[in-house]
Amino acid sequence: VKKIPGKPIVAVDIGGTKTIAAVLDTEYRTLARVRCLTCADEGPDCVIDTMVKAIHQAVKRCGLSLVDTGGVAIAAAAIIDLNRGLVTAAPNLPGWENIPLVDILAARLSARVVMLNDASAAAIGEHRLGAGRGMDNIIYITVSTGIGGGIVINGELYNGTDGCAAEIGHMIIDINGPLCKCGKRGCYEAMASGTAIGRMARERLAAGRSSVMLELADGRIDKVTAATVATAAARNDTLAEEVVRDAGFFLGIGLANLVNLINPQAIVVGGGVSKMGERILSPARKSMRQHAFKLPVSTVRVVRAGLGTDTGLIGAAIYAREVGRVTA
Amino acid sequence: VKKIPGKPIVAVDIGGTKTIAAVLDTEYRTLARVRCLTCADEGPDCVIDTMVKAIHQAVKRCGLSLVDTGGVAIAAAAIIDLNRGLVTAAPNLPGWENIPLVDILAARLSARVVMLNDASAAAIGEHRLGAGRGMDNIIYITVSTGIGGGIVINGELYNGTDGCAAEIGHMIIDINGPLCKCGKRGCYEAMASGTAIGRMARERLAAGRSSVMLELADGRIDKVTAATVATAAARNDTLAEEVVRDAGFFLGIGLANLVNLINPQAIVVGGGVSKMGERILSPARKSMRQHAFKLPVSTVRVVRAGLGTDTGLIGAAIYAREVGRVTA
Repeated sequence: VKKIPGKPIVAVDIGGTKTIAAVLDTEYRTLARVRCLTCADEGPDCVIDTMVKAIHQAVKRCGLSLVDTGGVAIAAAAIIDLNRGLVTAAPNLPGWENIPLVDILAARLSARVVMLNDASAAAIGEHRLGAGRGMDNIIYITVSTGIGGGIVINGELYNGTDGCAAEIGHMIIDINGPLCKCGKRGCYEAMASGTAIGRMARERLAAGRSSVMLELADGRIDKVTAATVATAAARNDTLAEEVVRDAGFFLGIGLANLVNLINPQAIVVGGGVSKMGERILSPARKSMRQHAFKLPVSTVRVVRAGLGTDTGLIGAAIYAREVGRVTA
Repeated sequence: VKKIPGKPIVAVDIGGTKTIAAVLDTEYRTLARVRCLTCADEGPDCVIDTMVKAIHQAVKRCGLSLVDTGGVAIAAAAIIDLNRGLVTAAPNLPGWENIPLVDILAARLSARVVMLNDASAAAIGEHRLGAGRGMDNIIYITVSTGIGGGIVINGELYNGTDGCAAEIGHMIIDINGPLCKCGKRGCYEAMASGTAIGRMARERLAAGRSSVMLELADGRIDKVTAATVATAAARNDTLAEEVVRDAGFFLGIGLANLVNLINPQAIVVGGGVSKMGERILSPARKSMRQHAFKLPVSTVRVVRAGLGTDTGLIGAAIYAREVGRVTA
């Protein structure tokens, strides 16, 4: 894919907690960046107002107006109907059901708008400019509060028929497992995400296990989160290390399923939990090797994402430019 | 993909029990067909001798010799390294480990040889000439003794990096589930295949449940197989119907995982178990809808394979012709 020179793109990353709007030049460098709270609980209208304001502000900070840009590229933590520009569902955005966000924003901004899933955006970002460069087939997986994914096949983002492929986090790996926030049991996300790590730690503390985690959480088990576990594990706390190892085991089972199904060259792991590095990736690789066939598992490399937290923004801008939905 | 006119192809389907060699014309009609026992237990040399004999016999029956054909296309129930023409592993073919079957046969036959996984072959067959015609993205799944699969993306067979993608049967859906013959627990194949159906029936009979299945198996629980269950279910036997329903439930969980991951237009179901038709597909669809996201599940159609038992042979011949590894 050749890089087309041209106008900057306004990339927007909309998550359950925060919304980021950034203006990226044709080399995907940040010219301006606005970060604000999503106000998800106040419903779609409020969130859309927030996005519009953030977009205008980011553009203004560059001394530009929207007509000077190539358009707007949105990465959303949602199940997206790519063909129709709909947010069909979004577990972290209450009230979002079949919202035609692309049309709404295009009308309010008088600009070209393209939208894709945030993990899919990150996948294309990592493939073009990050840890998956030059490879044919990669899977990107983000492990944070939830688990999301994106699939690159033959060097191109694979979106599926509707644009909602790669919902890796809701692959069931334990039909009798813990309840997922999606309502099902034993989803990958319910077993190996930051949420799962926090839950496992709290369960074991409640069962009477001792750990520095209790001090870190001011003696309140209910305050223990994945961040607490990460901090305690870095201090070689036995229980925290055990929880991370167990989460790594489950992480590896999902990786094995993906390896057996997709036979990728690499799985690129991003998201907050991946910041624990080898502490979680090493047991994950071990479990992956135990649960996948020799041939594909000897090929795949499990590596950390290379682009950092902006990978979704960068990927959305790349995607917008490549599919030609913005004015290059 | 345009169809290239030319010479017939010798297609070979090598399974754990039987080997079929068939000569197919450019319209994929069978000109001759030889079926023999694989003699898998006697090891690779015997199996290869069997294949060579069957190939020569099939060609001879058409009044041809091998030089009159475009070459040999093999569909094998194995984990295949497509790039190197290796059978790396084959659960139903004892002793097959990193056997360079393509080179061996090419040398013994003085012919062009191409090899792919049997379910991948069936996938391309169903896409070109069967139930998946005209679609962009389909998954083929064969449910018989085991579960195999093939993925067609953007109208082309997706082989993965090594050529061993779509090992659907060993996707783990229940980490504490029954032991699979691959050595892992809770593989899709261990939960929803013909083997699983037989096991569930035997377990419930051993627990004292009454059923016509016992009569059908001459009073011997250990003689009850998926075929017994199918026969009894067709006679509305309560326990047999329950087992099929439960297998359908597990089948649907795997389908849901595939729907969430691949977002295909259709899942084409073949293999012996699929002959039970709606009796198993109806509970499978219901379970799939319960376990997948609304958008992709509203798109996907779960349909029975259209090409019958020859789909692997036909698909292998199509693949050989399309990738140009045979003399068209």
